[in-house]
Amino acid sequence: MALTVVGSIAFDSVRTPFGARERMLGGSAVHFALAASFFTEVRVVGPVGADFGDEHLEMLRARGVDTTDVERVPGGETFFWRGHYEVDLNVAHTDETRLGVFADFEPKLSEESRAAEVLFLGNIQPELQRRVRAQCNGARLAALDSMNLWIETARDALVAAIREVDCVILNDAEVRMLTEEPNLAKAARELMDIGPRIVVAKRGEYGAALFTREGFFALPGFLLEDVRDPTGAGDSFAGGFLGYLDGCAAFEPDARTLQRAMAYGTVLASFNVEEFGTERVERLTPEEVSQRYGELRALTHFDAPA
Amino acid sequence: MALTVVGSIAFDSVRTPFGARERMLGGSAVHFALAASFFTEVRVVGPVGADFGDEHLEMLRARGVDTTDVERVPGGETFFWRGHYEVDLNVAHTDETRLGVFADFEPKLSEESRAAEVLFLGNIQPELQRRVRAQCNGARLAALDSMNLWIETARDALVAAIREVDCVILNDAEVRMLTEEPNLAKAARELMDIGPRIVVAKRGEYGAALFTREGFFALPGFLLEDVRDPTGAGDSFAGGFLGYLDGCAAFEPDARTLQRAMAYGTVLASFNVEEFGTERVERLTPEEVSQRYGELRALTHFDAPA
Repeated sequence: MALTVVGSIAFDSVRTPFGARERMLGGSAVHFALAASFFTEVRVVGPVGADFGDEHLEMLRARGVDTTDVERVPGGETFFWRGHYEVDLNVAHTDETRLGVFADFEPKLSEESRAAEVLFLGNIQPELQRRVRAQCNGARLAALDSMNLWIETARDALVAAIREVDCVILNDAEVRMLTEEPNLAKAARELMDIGPRIVVAKRGEYGAALFTREGFFALPGFLLEDVRDPTGAGDSFAGGFLGYLDGCAAFEPDARTLQRAMAYGTVLASFNVEEFGTERVERLTPEEVSQRYGELRALTHFDAPA
Repeated sequence: MALTVVGSIAFDSVRTPFGARERMLGGSAVHFALAASFFTEVRVVGPVGADFGDEHLEMLRARGVDTTDVERVPGGETFFWRGHYEVDLNVAHTDETRLGVFADFEPKLSEESRAAEVLFLGNIQPELQRRVRAQCNGARLAALDSMNLWIETARDALVAAIREVDCVILNDAEVRMLTEEPNLAKAARELMDIGPRIVVAKRGEYGAALFTREGFFALPGFLLEDVRDPTGAGDSFAGGFLGYLDGCAAFEPDARTLQRAMAYGTVLASFNVEEFGTERVERLTPEEVSQRYGELRALTHFDAPA
């Protein structure tokens, strides 16, 4: 079992109604890797700048994440994102994005990263995703995330990338936007017609829905009284979902395994949003993951008719 | 066991991307009563005009609904609503509302309707809801729905009405709006502090969440490939939820009973949206309800860790 993730490694400056942080560690690859590290061995591929401290990688390594393929670009600047959320945390605003070393990123995977059975292509330029997919052509379960920017500006490349993976993990609004089909179940079927056999539609605080050719599955988000910062929740979900599948070597997962993976994704995302950035997941324990998994069952399960 | 519902009995003219209907039977009391009729004896209280045909009541009676307290106002016009939905069915627009006989409605409950153990106050003016509640003061489980209009124009009366019921069933946006608390779990707790011991937040296609002083519960909506008309889905949910509770005489329901009720609410709402107005639920069978209840379990349940 081994899982390779390629995506952004970033500094995030975030303001929510519950506080603010300057230049904390973030990025899709970081949130994903932390979440997946509870289930399997994870390798991170991505560039950082000269402003990136070794202590940040240390935090990932402490969770067992392999950072050999994190490429330090001399004189470069690490990807930077500044954003804020409204009182309704579902509404996010981007105030500043500086691509930095990501502008000229050309992924070079080590032999170990290429050998992964599971590959996650975080939300980056679709052509980059395709080049990583080509290098990692032995992966038995490849998944990708994307965003509205690429649907608008690189649609053909994104569709080509989707054709080359087994699983897409997108926000439900993006699934609808990409297919121009407002019914989510129909839209997911259209994505499967392109190639993937698994479609996960993330729905923010409302949870996530899973579609395969055999059927549907859905979970609500875990209900929390304290949500401080939603940044990275979608990547934490993907990390829990794919990390679990890789951890039990389920490269062609059956329905029951996918359902458990959905639950682990939901659990990891729920911890992510409790504090800023990676703060909560950094000190998360496997016991807490197990406990919340049980709580999520209690939150969603109901008896057969009396 | 007996359940009384007061609310609108209406003619709805509805247009969605999947078709249109002129002056079909609708209204909160109608959708609620049809759904609840699968579980218990239902009495409908509300006014209709001279334009209201007996064949409409016949459809309710065929489902066992008692229409004795449907008050026909000579020369009056039945409540009329015209609206349309965007391609994204979550976005509804009201084009015309004519209160008709509802403008001067003064509820007069028969002795039988007053004797109900469960009472549902559909979305009408909060002072009217309070007067019905006062007439039906023996009800052991009273619930109400409301809407943004009353939160904006009759807030004090609505809060007074909420103080007098055991259960509120509102859209999640309305729960947040009423409490001015963006976190749904906290907002639900604030509503419970007013008086009710059960808060249900309806979330449209995303399902519903339940809050009591003891804990949380949530279900996603049933995933459907064909959704034609969401009108009445919330009232169908409430009808399934409260109808089930009344049907098993659960006037102080425990957690497991509430969870089953949430599932039946979800099931009835899912049938409601498959066709226009009451078309689907009119010909629904108890066997179909049972089957979808099982499908909803399969859609949401996952194993304990392997």
